[in-house]
Amino acid sequence: MLKEKTHALISSNRVEGTAVYGREDNHIGSVKELLIEKRGGQVQDVIVSVGGFLGLGSDLHSLPWSKLDYDVDLGGYKLDVTEEELKNAPRFAENDAERPYDRDYQTSVYEYWTVTPYW
Amino acid sequence: MLKEKTHALISSNRVEGTAVYGREDNHIGSVKELLIEKRGGQVQDVIVSVGGFLGLGSDLHSLPWSKLDYDVDLGGYKLDVTEEELKNAPRFAENDAERPYDRDYQTSVYEYWTVTPYW
Repeated sequence: MLKEKTHALISSNRVEGTAVYGREDNHIGSVKELLIEKRGGQVQDVIVSVGGFLGLGSDLHSLPWSKLDYDVDLGGYKLDVTEEELKNAPRFAENDAERPYDRDYQTSVYEYWTVTPYW
Repeated sequence: MLKEKTHALISSNRVEGTAVYGREDNHIGSVKELLIEKRGGQVQDVIVSVGGFLGLGSDLHSLPWSKLDYDVDLGGYKLDVTEEELKNAPRFAENDAERPYDRDYQTSVYEYWTVTPYW
């Protein structure tokens, strides 16, 4: 018997580690983790590890979930952004793990990506 | 300078692996993964690995997100359910990984836990 599947859902385990591509299908990095609203269960931000521009180590970016679209052909998330735009975007270092929870930082992220804040 | 933190958010990495307790604060199992609505980013189901009733191996349960409340004292999620109720709840085996995406199964879950389906 053919099972009806709800392709509308995806496991957090599958999202984590998925590749992220830029506007020209260039590989940008990969999803590290998701930031979820504790009470309501809404995923608000996606933490993307962005690797090695200009010989630098990887930075972390938090991005509003709505900015990432899954691209079946690429097999990863596509972000409508150039490398140049990404270089100017708010970011934080691996050892600054509390940063994405900081309201000032979040405000700069949502302003940069021109997404209406959820708070 | 004291940073304002948005404690309203939690990382998916922290949710995964977190202990789950029952009505009498008994340890039931732990969170394995989250099922997220691809488009909207809403966490719908929490897959909980429930270990070893009656000498049996662990089963997986998917539960509506709204059924799990974080309990600071317990340091884990609390589920308002007895072991007996959990034994009768819909479940699936590790090797039946597509089950939680199956609409018939999901319907049985939402009926059992008396939560209005989101679909």
